[in-house]
Amino acid sequence: MEALKKAIQEKGTVLPGGVLKVNSFLNHQIDTGLMIEIGKEFAHRFNDCGITKVITIESSGIAPSFFAAHELNAPLVFARKKKSLTLQDNLYTSSVYSFTKQETSEITVAKEFLHEDDTVLIIDDFLANGQAALGLVDVVKQAGATVAGIGIVIEKSFQPGREKLESAGYRVESLARIESLDNESVTFLQKDAVHS
Amino acid sequence: MEALKKAIQEKGTVLPGGVLKVNSFLNHQIDTGLMIEIGKEFAHRFNDCGITKVITIESSGIAPSFFAAHELNAPLVFARKKKSLTLQDNLYTSSVYSFTKQETSEITVAKEFLHEDDTVLIIDDFLANGQAALGLVDVVKQAGATVAGIGIVIEKSFQPGREKLESAGYRVESLARIESLDNESVTFLQKDAVHS
Repeated sequence: MEALKKAIQEKGTVLPGGVLKVNSFLNHQIDTGLMIEIGKEFAHRFNDCGITKVITIESSGIAPSFFAAHELNAPLVFARKKKSLTLQDNLYTSSVYSFTKQETSEITVAKEFLHEDDTVLIIDDFLANGQAALGLVDVVKQAGATVAGIGIVIEKSFQPGREKLESAGYRVESLARIESLDNESVTFLQKDAVHS
Repeated sequence: MEALKKAIQEKGTVLPGGVLKVNSFLNHQIDTGLMIEIGKEFAHRFNDCGITKVITIESSGIAPSFFAAHELNAPLVFARKKKSLTLQDNLYTSSVYSFTKQETSEITVAKEFLHEDDTVLIIDDFLANGQAALGLVDVVKQAGATVAGIGIVIEKSFQPGREKLESAGYRVESLARIESLDNESVTFLQKDAVHS
């Protein structure tokens, strides 16, 4: 998706160690116009899948998934993220390990908002090691619902997230695929050109 | 705002102790159509204020402020909320005490996203004791920016939040004002009829 790649190139910052900061339009300050275009693109890619619910994780997943849910005419549910949790009967929970933060969070979705007849589109802002997406998949499966696919805003294609998700049988649609963050610059994957 | 009041009446749940749960359309599952109407209403009410930035707090503030920022053609910034914080030079921070959770959080906004020439609309999902709104006001003032007003989705008018904010000189626009949650039912403030 060209507008997204342009924003990453022009407004993103690559920190040493392969960290991409997109605080100025996605993670802290939000470019709502770009988020609407991102949402529409997800909706377009999953338009024929019979999506009944879009699920993401707070907080950075909310803006890019908002318009996807709206266009697909499905409610948006954002999983809550907590460092630790007293187990509660009315919640689906899954543990998500963050390599960046080196800590485990519990993500939770209230059982009342996810049912076995749901067909779910999972959306997240980043895909790196796939832990967050796998946590959301786990929650959807606990409900007995169907995962239609996983929509990612920015994929770090040099990390194993996509491979893990595809090996497990899930369709992954990433709007920007990054081949490398070496030398503090962004190189996009060329073979993604067909989708961009 | 009638559509919001209808959603509160039909989908909200009043728990003992005056807690209003709106998990099914605002705080966990999101009704994007309603959030767009809410955003448009905020934009309409603050349309002539020269807003250059909309600020809210993660996570529940993001959805209702998204379209307000979009219609006002201003970036949306969501303050991050953390239990404790190592002070950092590049952040504005303020302490917010939650009476519900009985704990203090630090809210933070990166200095690069808030400037002294900004005219800011603050939006939050709930107004009860006013602590979160006052924390956001504090952050805006640290930047030397101007607070144009405070937009609230659901105001608990039987708690002192609005009075505190108005006493401090701020304009408060609430889309639903609740007079009472007694007897586990919702009573809206009648004098708000002119705005609804």
